[in-house]
Formats: sequence, C-alpha cells, structure tokens
Amino acid sequence: MGIKKHILVIPGDGIGPEVTAWGKAVLEQIASAYGHEFTYDEALMGHAGIEATGNPLPDETLEKAKASDAILFGAIGHIKYDNDPSAKVRPEQGLLKIRKELGLYANLRPIMLFDELLDASSLKPAVLRGTDILFFRELTGDVYFGEKSRSEDRNTASDLMIYHRYEVERIAHKAYQAAQSRSKRLCSVDKANVLESSRLWREVVQEIAKQYPDVETEHMFIDNAAMQLVKNPKKFDVVLTANLFGDILTDEASQIAGSMGMLASASVGDGTGFFEPIHGSAHDIAGQDKANPLASILSVALMLEISFGLKDEAKRITTAIDHVLKAGYRTGDIADTLTQPDKILGTKAMGEMVLQ
Amino acid sequence: MGIKKHILVIPGDGIGPEVTAWGKAVLEQIASAYGHEFTYDEALMGHAGIEATGNPLPDETLEKAKASDAILFGAIGHIKYDNDPSAKVRPEQGLLKIRKELGLYANLRPIMLFDELLDASSLKPAVLRGTDILFFRELTGDVYFGEKSRSEDRNTASDLMIYHRYEVERIAHKAYQAAQSRSKRLCSVDKANVLESSRLWREVVQEIAKQYPDVETEHMFIDNAAMQLVKNPKKFDVVLTANLFGDILTDEASQIAGSMGMLASASVGDGTGFFEPIHGSAHDIAGQDKANPLASILSVALMLEISFGLKDEAKRITTAIDHVLKAGYRTGDIADTLTQPDKILGTKAMGEMVLQ
Ligand SMILES: CC(C)[C@H](C(=O)O)[C@@H](O)C(=O)O
Ligand SMILES: CC(C)[C@H](C(=O)O)[C@@H](O)C(=O)O
Repeated sequence: MGIKKHILVIPGDGIGPEVTAWGKAVLEQIASAYGHEFTYDEALMGHAGIEATGNPLPDETLEKAKASDAILFGAIGHIKYDNDPSAKVRPEQGLLKIRKELGLYANLRPIMLFDELLDASSLKPAVLRGTDILFFRELTGDVYFGEKSRSEDRNTASDLMIYHRYEVERIAHKAYQAAQSRSKRLCSVDKANVLESSRLWREVVQEIAKQYPDVETEHMFIDNAAMQLVKNPKKFDVVLTANLFGDILTDEASQIAGSMGMLASASVGDGTGFFEPIHGSAHDIAGQDKANPLASILSVALMLEISFGLKDEAKRITTAIDHVLKAGYRTGDIADTLTQPDKILGTKAMGEMVLQ
Repeated sequence: MGIKKHILVIPGDGIGPEVTAWGKAVLEQIASAYGHEFTYDEALMGHAGIEATGNPLPDETLEKAKASDAILFGAIGHIKYDNDPSAKVRPEQGLLKIRKELGLYANLRPIMLFDELLDASSLKPAVLRGTDILFFRELTGDVYFGEKSRSEDRNTASDLMIYHRYEVERIAHKAYQAAQSRSKRLCSVDKANVLESSRLWREVVQEIAKQYPDVETEHMFIDNAAMQLVKNPKKFDVVLTANLFGDILTDEASQIAGSMGMLASASVGDGTGFFEPIHGSAHDIAGQDKANPLASILSVALMLEISFGLKDEAKRITTAIDHVLKAGYRTGDIADTLTQPDKILGTKAMGEMVLQ
C-alpha cells in the first residue's frame, strides 16, 4: 500500500540546487513506481536565505521544516564569507540552527564502497576492499554550540567545548542499537587523555556499553583514529564520536568511498529527519553541470529507509546506482584513468542515467 | 671546530627507553666522528615519573630540562589511565606541562618520504610520490590548555578552546619563514566557518601573510584538510595549524610516511628545544625488541640541525637511514610483502645497522 508523505526540499547554495533536483526526480519516480504520494515544498537556507531575507535560516523555512515528514537538503556555504572572518551573518549558521531547532542530534554517515569505485580512491584497493563503516556523529553539542566569545580588544577568542551526560547517552544508545544489527563492534573516538569533555564522553560510553553486552566496545583517541582510518579502514564498523571529531573523521573517510560526491548523511533525533550529501557547496563548479548528483540521490535512499521505513525502495536506488557504475559511467570526480572518455557524464546525464 | 652541548634524555614510557637508547647512541657516534663534546643527563616523565615520584613531571626533570641545550624525549602514556577517565594524575600531564614551562609553542613535524617505503603506505605510490610536508602545529595553547571544568553533579564537562593574538602571530611568523626557504606555499588550517577562535586565527594569519608577499597563502577548513591530505598530499607544503587540529592532521599524515615509526618532531619556542618521535608509548610491544628506533634517530637529526645548526651531521644521519632502507632492511611496522623475511630487524639490530 502506498504511503503519503510531505517532503521539504532545501536546495541551499552552490551546487545544492543542481544535485537536489536529481534527488527530487528520483523521489518522484519512486513514488509513481510504488504508488506512494509524496508532496513537496521548497525553502531557502544559507547564502540563498541571506540574499533573500537577510537570514541564513528564514522563519518560514523553519516552520515548513517542522511541518514536513522529511527534509532533503543540498549544500551550504559561500566563499565570500570564508575569507571574511569578521562577517556577523554566515550561511553555516542556518545549518547549525536548523540542526539545533529540529533536535537532530545524531548524524549517521555510512561509508559504503561501490566495488567499481575502488580505483578512484587514493588508497590501495587491497586496503579498501570490504570496508563498511557507519559513523554516528553527535550533531547538536560540542564546541559547535558552546558559548563563543571575543575580548573587547578583539585579541582573544574562545569557544566552549562542552558536553552534558544526556547528550552522550542518547546518541550512544542509537549507535549501540545500530551496532547490534551490524557486526556488533563499536569504536568510540575521543581525546580523553587531554580533554575533560572527552573524559565525560568516555565515562558515559563505558556505562552505556554495559547495557549492550553483545557489542564489543573499543575506545580510541582521535589522533590515532585519524591515522587508523587511513592505515586500515576495515577495522572499523560503527564509529561513535563527538561533533567536531565526527566532522573531521567523516570527511577524511569520504576518500575511502572514492569521492565526497558519493556520500550521503542522515540527521535524526527528536523530530523530522534531515538528509543531505556530505559534500559542500563547491562554488567553483556550481551551475556548470559538473557536480555529482549521486550523494543527493543516496540521501533520498537514506530518507526512504530511515524516515519512511521503505527498505525496498531504498534498495532499488542503490541497485540502480550500482548498475550505472557497473556500466562504466562516471561523473568527473569519480572518473579515473580507466574510464572511457565518452562515459564521463555531467550532472544531468548522470541523473537521467540513474532514473532509467 | 667541535661544539660543546649538554643534552637531557627523557626516555619516558613504553617503548620510549628502547628507542631513545638508539637516538643517544647515534648522538655519541656523531660526536666522536665530528669532534663534538656532548654531555648527557637523564630524567623521568610520564608514567615513569608518577611511579617514582607521584608526579608526571618531577621538579628535578624540569630543572634539568631548563639547564640543558636540547632534550631528547621518548614517548608517554599508559593504558592504565586511558581506560580510567576519572584518574586525576595522568602521564600526559607531564608532557603538556613541560611544553608550557619551556615555552615550546611551535611543533615542527616534517613528513618526509623515503622512496623505499612508498609501498609500506596504504596510499597508492602515485599519490604519495613527491610528497614533502612541514607541519607547524601550535603547541601551548588551544583547548589543550584552556580552562577545564566538571559540574558538581559530574554530568557536564567542558574545555575552553581559546587563542590569543600573540600566540597565533609567533607561530605564524615561524611557519612563514620556513615557507620562504621552501616552496613558498603555506596552507593555514582552521574551522573559521564555525569557531570564533578559528576566526581570530584566520584574521591574524591574513595579517601576517601581508609581511610575506612572496609566500602564497591558502586557508582551508580542517574537515577539508583531513580529506585533501588523503586525496592529494602533494598539494601541501608548509601547513600551519592549531594544537588540536595539528594533533589530528599530523597523525593522519604519518600514514603517508608509511608508518608513525618514521616520524620525528621538534618543539621549539622560547628556550631549550625538545625532540621526540611522533609515535606513542606502544605498551603492547614495549620491551620486546620490536619498536622502530628510526623516529628517535631522526629526532636526533632534527636536534642537530635545529638546535645546534649542524646540518652536515643531520644529513649524515638521514643518509645512513636511507642506505639501510635501500639495502632492504625494515622493522616490522614498515615491512611489506616484498621484504625478505631475514631483513626484518628488531630494535637493536636496526639501531646497529644505522650506526654502521
Ligand atoms: C558547513 C559546516 C558548518 C558543516 C559542519 O562542520 O558541521 C559541514 O562541514 C558538515 O559536516 O555538515
Ligand atoms: C600524548 C598526547 C597528550 C599528545 C598530544 O595530544 O599532544 C600526543 O598525541 C602528541 O601528539 O604529542
């Protein structure tokens, strides 16, 4: 039986609109193939929000977000702000605020490997083969949301790295539950040899671990984890970590998948789920039909599975992508020397190929 | 003409004593070959300091450190504390305190590639070849030294990530000066799209950059840098970054050199220079004649060059290591499938091989 869902699309900045368009096209096709009824709305965020309303997260966007069943997001950021450290209003504030307002405390980032892309990575195929990692990055705490301050003479600046017990508990439970349904191994990453917030993190994870005796827990320092991820990515299964460490590790891990252009993420928590590629706004290639739409399409697969419980539909999407890759088609970012030049596709052609 | 120097050796924990012994042996050989007079003293730090005196940095060690011309350090840390987040006295405190007390604000970590070890890395040789990075990690500020707090109910913990203008200025000058004598490219890594302390960092680096118009500056977010380092390490030359980000990036970068066992670091600033391998105490292999002594020996090369201005002597050491590697000898950590089994050496045999 078909289901009815209302989806908010937030294209955002840079390549966001181009890639999101293909995510939406895939949603439409899935709806008609499986008899679901998806309705859509669209809203502004980031630089696009600032341009139109002066606000990186316009009130209207937040209202629409709360009223929707799931959100498909594109990308955020603009070079203009990156090189102006004194800008008061910044695109990223929109993303941070919506994460906080919707209570999206758990950011799931699966690192899955398409066999065909083994060669696109800078890591050796033998190192990569068999890698399958699911990151749980805490998303509404840490130094991202702790108090920021700048001295009056502007010569001193600080950010408070802070965690509360309940924040660690709730994401730890989610990560352990996921570990139970996977290979029953969980690695918690912190810097407990130096940071008090990490010592709280480790204490709480040690406690929660007792409730999941079937899961094997390892604790690792962030510096070591950043190293091991390159050295031997296969050793990781579920990785649980704080907001800042997760930001760094998951971007690093994207190289395992051959390209950031292949990675999707799901942010979940108290309410509406939020789905987005992990890549950025990539202004240098925006509007040129060069961006890889696959991460946005994979974000849609995550939405179908996680927010709507539609496993078959999600599987249909990853299988379609698999076929396209097997047939040798690539976007520029995942092409390698073995790719036939006529099989290097733009955003549009790749999107259409997946639809077929 | 020979020079006279007094060197403090701090073996530290785990494999520290075994590897440091070979660093010292190389110093002795260099002294006699070049007619220098090096005198030595030894002191405790870390777990070794706690065991003997209850203090991870005994007063006597600090006094000896201040009275020496350079310090050769081994490694720090003990598994016992890692899994006990509530331990009040921790080995690492000794290392952090000596960095602060000696004003060692700049940690230099060269990532150099021995051609023979290209295959030991998990990255593809084609990605690696030609990589030559010099990290400048700020070492006495950031969330490492900002105020830590734990609420009375123990449910909230925090660390202050904080930077002062002068802290960024002094290390930026050092990094720019190094860039001038290298390929004139500098990449500063921060998270200025989210953190106020990073925005100060970026502002200051932008200002200092104006004083070095011959150096090309790039600013990169830490998540992107962690990714680019795997994707295309060659694109980096001098990398300037904060304490925490530097900790993570340099460990990650160690995989480029094939192993942490090959990387040395120099910490310099207001007074006595401090030289150490970037690897940890590796208790799992301590005392088993398995540790790679090359990072300690390379630390000695850095000492000779940076603290004593002895370039030829330093070069002699790296050349000796190069010869040993070319002859096919490896310790276990840098051996690969092509290594002849009888050329896999223990700590002692590798140390002796380099001396010859
Ligand atoms: C754009 C930025 C604020 C964001 C973050 O750091 O969380 C991004 O890097 C991400 O990982 O989603
Ligand atoms: C042992 C630890 C405190 C230390 C650090 O984080 O600085 C180490 O990882 C290093 O990089 O020297």
